[in-house]
Amino acid sequence: MSVSEATPTLELARALIARRSVTPEDAGCLELLGERLATLDFRLERIDSGGVCNLWARRGTASPLVCFAGHTDVVPTGPLDRWNSDPFEPTIRDGKLYGRGAADMKTSLAAFVTAIETFVADHSDHAGSIALLLTSDEEGVATDGTVRVVDALEARGECLDYCIVGEPTSVRTLGDMIKNGRRGSLSGTLRVKGKQGHVAYPHLATNPVHAFAPALAELAATHWDDGNEFFPPTTFQVSNIHAGTGANNVIPGECEVLFNFRFASVTTADELKARVLEILDRHGVERELSWHLSGNPYLTGRGALVEALSGAIRDVAGIDTELSTTGGTSDGRFIARICREVVEFGPINATIHQLNECVPVDSVEPLSAIYARTLENLLARKGSI
Amino acid sequence: MSVSEATPTLELARALIARRSVTPEDAGCLELLGERLATLDFRLERIDSGGVCNLWARRGTASPLVCFAGHTDVVPTGPLDRWNSDPFEPTIRDGKLYGRGAADMKTSLAAFVTAIETFVADHSDHAGSIALLLTSDEEGVATDGTVRVVDALEARGECLDYCIVGEPTSVRTLGDMIKNGRRGSLSGTLRVKGKQGHVAYPHLATNPVHAFAPALAELAATHWDDGNEFFPPTTFQVSNIHAGTGANNVIPGECEVLFNFRFASVTTADELKARVLEILDRHGVERELSWHLSGNPYLTGRGALVEALSGAIRDVAGIDTELSTTGGTSDGRFIARICREVVEFGPINATIHQLNECVPVDSVEPLSAIYARTLENLLARKGSI
Repeated sequence: MSVSEATPTLELARALIARRSVTPEDAGCLELLGERLATLDFRLERIDSGGVCNLWARRGTASPLVCFAGHTDVVPTGPLDRWNSDPFEPTIRDGKLYGRGAADMKTSLAAFVTAIETFVADHSDHAGSIALLLTSDEEGVATDGTVRVVDALEARGECLDYCIVGEPTSVRTLGDMIKNGRRGSLSGTLRVKGKQGHVAYPHLATNPVHAFAPALAELAATHWDDGNEFFPPTTFQVSNIHAGTGANNVIPGECEVLFNFRFASVTTADELKARVLEILDRHGVERELSWHLSGNPYLTGRGALVEALSGAIRDVAGIDTELSTTGGTSDGRFIARICREVVEFGPINATIHQLNECVPVDSVEPLSAIYARTLENLLARKGSI
Repeated sequence: MSVSEATPTLELARALIARRSVTPEDAGCLELLGERLATLDFRLERIDSGGVCNLWARRGTASPLVCFAGHTDVVPTGPLDRWNSDPFEPTIRDGKLYGRGAADMKTSLAAFVTAIETFVADHSDHAGSIALLLTSDEEGVATDGTVRVVDALEARGECLDYCIVGEPTSVRTLGDMIKNGRRGSLSGTLRVKGKQGHVAYPHLATNPVHAFAPALAELAATHWDDGNEFFPPTTFQVSNIHAGTGANNVIPGECEVLFNFRFASVTTADELKARVLEILDRHGVERELSWHLSGNPYLTGRGALVEALSGAIRDVAGIDTELSTTGGTSDGRFIARICREVVEFGPINATIHQLNECVPVDSVEPLSAIYARTLENLLARKGSI
């Protein structure tokens, strides 16, 4: 390793990658990060739940509170023999840092810490407070991670003002995209009830596939909303439909349908449910229907946080960032419950969850610099350096 | 057994039931029947195929040719401990003859033979010819049975004029229904082609369930024809639909649909195929589609055979019979290829394919009498007794 590569963020990222924290394992990452934060006068609080390690670390008690949020767990490696180097031996090759979690999201965690170190060194009397919300249960079921910390904070009335989740949001170059919201996800399990019978005697049976067909066609063709400036229109997709046991002379007695909405913040889950029920009722579909709301949508408009972060990106990386709400759900949905402005920003996501996951080495210190500059924009007192 | 029960048809039916001819076994039934026919100057010809026993027996060479058709094989017994008596030990109890095949269709076979014996005894110089077409492969796959005999007869140009298939068609009382046709059965296996993807990114995928939905709704709602005097309208039924592997965040790549038409003789299989294709094309459904024609419909209008049989029923049973084309397919569909008039008539079908299959003892000799009277109506020379 050349001297130029031994930068603080890169070193910490390597130390984190070397810890085999396959979800929901933390493998000592929180302890390592906690030691660094403790020297900066952060008060550490473990909010573990169901075997999952969670850390809430806060420096100061004043408002506004700026929080960095992230996860120490990584997805499994997949076949080891298809990695060019051991996924838990961080390796620099051709200008890239390779290892499981390099992009998602151990480099972000390292950059959080070094950015805070830089900012506090220059602004030990900064305004407000700084916090980290870290979990080892984001890549798994996500039931004992961020949501539990948010529950605890909410229970004691501890609110966040600004939160940056370190998810890898950059697409082609560091800073080209931040996520200022995510769509909600609402799933339904529908069992259309018919009456089984022989295909030669359809008048004695009720075919649930036929009974559901007009409603299905209408659901698939429905325009649910127009989205808005930040969200694409809400989408409806059938993921599974099953009826019949293989015999081709039997009219099935039931048809099971699984469907999912990804919905913009312009429509509520309750509104979508009501519209589905109206369509099913109007077509006389006899059924059982159960719902599962995986996450409500959240949206952070153009305010202080977006301004501070996009300004920092412009200053450090020299580019104008794009706001986006695409993609699946993230822990941002939980944090938005207690935080008025939440965005997600981190390194290039091209290799996440893949073999040979990596980040460009020359993006590592700039990521730390962007986070540090964002802190300056939000918390530096006027007149300080 | 009382003397009154030892009638010729009942005795022969009992001898046949005692032979364990579970499909496709014949268990010596054809040999027993053949011996009786040989004494009546029938010429016997075995047309066995693929391990299946088939018999073509004909008396005389002149026209018209009246044929009785049937099968010696029976369906399996099901759980023996739920039969009140051994299914292969014919038992008379409470005025009924119990045993597997009592109704479907060993009593018919016995009645064929005794009817011919009666008729030939009185009309040894009858007009035309009499034949029996018997197989042991009707209850199974039916690929080496009647269809093979029909193939052989067709190949040598041997045509039938009138055929009575001995299927149990009576509903409440002997003679109340004969089948003068059957609907056709056409099945399709449709694979709707889509493009798999994540439900969060539907613009990158093509959901085959959505793509098929409008066509499915139209297929389910289509009025295919009006039927006619004898046939109910053609029906379309989806028997199976399957898409998705269980995951609720994946848009499936394919949707498999099995469907079946039961169709009247007013519409051809080719017409139904063309109309399905037109609907799929108009809705832009990308697909693979394969067809299986299980049987074309056949129909025998009110002609000499229906007249002769319904007249015989009126004379023997004192009731007006009903013509019907309901139910599944039968070997009549094969025979209709080489026979201008085909009907099905036999005992009460209430217990067929069930435990404790039976026929009323007092319907056994009348069935033989109806068959004999039908022969008289068709083949007795004027002036003979």
